[in-house]
Amino acid sequence: MTHPAYAALSATFTRLYRLGHLSAIAGWDQATMMPPKGNAARGAALAELQVLMHQTLTDPKLRSALDAAQTEALDAFEQASLREMRRAWDAANSLPESLVEAQSLATSKAEHAWRTQRPANDWAGFLENWGPVVALARQEAQLLSQARGISPYDALMDKYEPGMRSADIERLFAEIKTWLPGLIRAVRERQANEPARVPQGPFPVERQRALGLAVMQRLGFDFEGGRLDVSTHPFCGGVPEDVRVTTRYTEDDFTRSLMGIIHETGHARYEQNLPRAWVHLPVGQARSMGIHESQSLAFEMQLGRHPGFLAHLAPLLREHLGAQPALEPENLARLYTRVEPGLIRVDADELTYPAHIILRFEIERALIDGEIEAADVPALWDEKMRAYLDLDTRGNFRDGCMQDIHWPLGAFGYFPSYTLGALYAAQWFAAMRRETPELDRQIAAGELQTVFDWLHTHIWSQASLWPTETLVRRATDEALNPAHFRAHLEQRYLHA
Amino acid sequence: MTHPAYAALSATFTRLYRLGHLSAIAGWDQATMMPPKGNAARGAALAELQVLMHQTLTDPKLRSALDAAQTEALDAFEQASLREMRRAWDAANSLPESLVEAQSLATSKAEHAWRTQRPANDWAGFLENWGPVVALARQEAQLLSQARGISPYDALMDKYEPGMRSADIERLFAEIKTWLPGLIRAVRERQANEPARVPQGPFPVERQRALGLAVMQRLGFDFEGGRLDVSTHPFCGGVPEDVRVTTRYTEDDFTRSLMGIIHETGHARYEQNLPRAWVHLPVGQARSMGIHESQSLAFEMQLGRHPGFLAHLAPLLREHLGAQPALEPENLARLYTRVEPGLIRVDADELTYPAHIILRFEIERALIDGEIEAADVPALWDEKMRAYLDLDTRGNFRDGCMQDIHWPLGAFGYFPSYTLGALYAAQWFAAMRRETPELDRQIAAGELQTVFDWLHTHIWSQASLWPTETLVRRATDEALNPAHFRAHLEQRYLHA
Repeated sequence: MTHPAYAALSATFTRLYRLGHLSAIAGWDQATMMPPKGNAARGAALAELQVLMHQTLTDPKLRSALDAAQTEALDAFEQASLREMRRAWDAANSLPESLVEAQSLATSKAEHAWRTQRPANDWAGFLENWGPVVALARQEAQLLSQARGISPYDALMDKYEPGMRSADIERLFAEIKTWLPGLIRAVRERQANEPARVPQGPFPVERQRALGLAVMQRLGFDFEGGRLDVSTHPFCGGVPEDVRVTTRYTEDDFTRSLMGIIHETGHARYEQNLPRAWVHLPVGQARSMGIHESQSLAFEMQLGRHPGFLAHLAPLLREHLGAQPALEPENLARLYTRVEPGLIRVDADELTYPAHIILRFEIERALIDGEIEAADVPALWDEKMRAYLDLDTRGNFRDGCMQDIHWPLGAFGYFPSYTLGALYAAQWFAAMRRETPELDRQIAAGELQTVFDWLHTHIWSQASLWPTETLVRRATDEALNPAHFRAHLEQRYLHA
Repeated sequence: MTHPAYAALSATFTRLYRLGHLSAIAGWDQATMMPPKGNAARGAALAELQVLMHQTLTDPKLRSALDAAQTEALDAFEQASLREMRRAWDAANSLPESLVEAQSLATSKAEHAWRTQRPANDWAGFLENWGPVVALARQEAQLLSQARGISPYDALMDKYEPGMRSADIERLFAEIKTWLPGLIRAVRERQANEPARVPQGPFPVERQRALGLAVMQRLGFDFEGGRLDVSTHPFCGGVPEDVRVTTRYTEDDFTRSLMGIIHETGHARYEQNLPRAWVHLPVGQARSMGIHESQSLAFEMQLGRHPGFLAHLAPLLREHLGAQPALEPENLARLYTRVEPGLIRVDADELTYPAHIILRFEIERALIDGEIEAADVPALWDEKMRAYLDLDTRGNFRDGCMQDIHWPLGAFGYFPSYTLGALYAAQWFAAMRRETPELDRQIAAGELQTVFDWLHTHIWSQASLWPTETLVRRATDEALNPAHFRAHLEQRYLHA
């Protein structure tokens, strides 16, 4: 071996990848299969593994190996690989083991209790567990902030979206705020004259599941390397070799579950198509959560709500759910492009979704930076929901600040990734249309290979080879540009 | 802490318990949920965890702690706990890592090939992989034999049934051989005049599953701390806090799946009722495989095939599967007590099952002690099947010596645990009947609490507090006594 330090690092990160596999599968099981009395032992086992992985990442030998590898004659790939290893090392070495363990235990407890507290609208009960989660996240943010010389909130956001700062996010969100409210008003006026029929259920769970599987198949999900199951909060988990997608069903409405499955299938295809030869190294893993969301939103928003795609999907819906006027192509397109402010982020339409993110970003940044306390969140939530979407959420914690799994899990700094993902996704499709002017006709004909090939070439196969900004420039010849998102929305909602 | 060495040991074994949790859940997932392309990554992840646990157990600090704890003023419980820790330590530290690794590779190869060689009846192909498995098992047995001062085969058996020696097994089996063949003949003559109706399917999987869940509920399985799923080879896995029972269904026959579920529920209740306060230490875990099988067989054989229990189950069967004459109580009892020599161990009835075990014990002991070679096994198998069950197995390797997973996996010394379990189970019920003469009337009335309470008091709650022989004496006031098994069989099959 000509690069012994790099080789030693590769061996260590391969070990970490394998331990991470167990964490991912046990985590999936916890959300989908585990009976309630298993939770304490599961939490303890996962925390033990976290500690172990943290010990591996903080072993002084690893620092020496990183330094030694820096002096080896590495090729471009190995240099990128080393950069991502150092990023993982930095993240772990900025935090003491006691904090990592305390966070694992506190979030596991809060998330598990949240599952019953949310339906019970039990804010007081939730706050009891969530207070410690917030306090620990602030400690983490402080430590990372000192290590990186960036603000506490930025330090958390950097875990999900490397290189992105809240100043960037503020600039993007400020720009969006200048035109989105007007666009929403214009679209709602237009749609007032175009009522959509509501599909009449019940839609039995087994039929919805069969439909979901058929749609996943059409979207290229590899069932030899993954599954579809049920969890309270849908997610895409597991490992690249075995991707676990989840959804939830209600018998009176299939539309949300179906679009949720399409969303998670976007995440899943990214994972399933990461370069298998180096997926065990940080450089072979997904670039960032914003890029990850750009895949799920490419599937859900760009593709899934595309009138041509929906027309092509209509016969599949009739086959699984029976024929009814509401399942005709034109009505499907109206349903899935209906713009209507609502309480629930994951059910939001493409236009009002950014408001949900901006609200969460503003609240969690203030919370982490110490401007507000956990107990202040509901009032702030009510105020911003009134201001941004003109909705009353007072007393409704369940459909308010308790609705997302992110906060009980302590995943502060994640939310901006969703809107970044929507912006990226619009930019990907703008690039695709430049390269393939007949793209929309292809989609309407059910030919999705151009889309998949473009994403495979520019995103999936690139994993973490490049910093995010470079990845975006290589794929689209420009930096992140919110004009594509605006153009996409205006085209679909005003001019189509 | 007044006993620092013992406290340090407890912390280490708690860590091992938590890592074992992840191994158990990932192993369950592999057998029940995992899609095929996940297997290589799962194997690598589980192997990584095994290495890690082995390193923990072979850390020199652990030996010092064990020695230091020996000099601490431990109470009786801590002494028992220390004894079981040392047992776990011995097992890991008696073998060089090179042998452990060679065995892992050889058995993984043999077992993987066996999956296709068995259906193909390919003994020659199997022998190629199995020769090395046997050779390595002999090396292991030699090393353990020297370390413990017992025979090589005994050293392997001791892994599964601590304290049991082949001289004991021989004495037990020799005694059984004096009366069992005559009993089988007598029962078969009697049953020739009592034909059993075969239930007519199909029995839809969903109905069988609902029936299985209802029976588990009746048997006291705690669904808040466990699940029922499907796997190719049924097992009881997971962890005491979250027990995962599996079965397999065929639509034309519900009887095997149902009795399999009852069997695994016996294992499950043992695990679910291990003392929760010390389940994370070796002393809080199941006593031995023989004692474990005594729980599954207490449920399957003593209870599950009890005519009174079956009569009480009959309405439940009718409710889930529909009424038919074959589901009437008397016929159910005939079905589940039918005695008929067959080739396959796992399908054997209560009377012929011991013959399958005696045959395997005699062959594998000779093999490990070097009296025969792997190539001699089929001829010996044919000879013993002819002698014990009057069946011709010549040329039928698939349903002969290749039928079990134990040998390709190198699990020599395990088989006696099955018949020990049957003997123990009969002894438990004899003790219960002495204490509660109305036991059989209770069972027929569906009152199972006396059975559960007895098992809880004498077995489940005792975990590994006592050596097996002490556990048996404390529970039944005598040592293991095969007369109870004989009396049980004669009572049920001749005198009832």
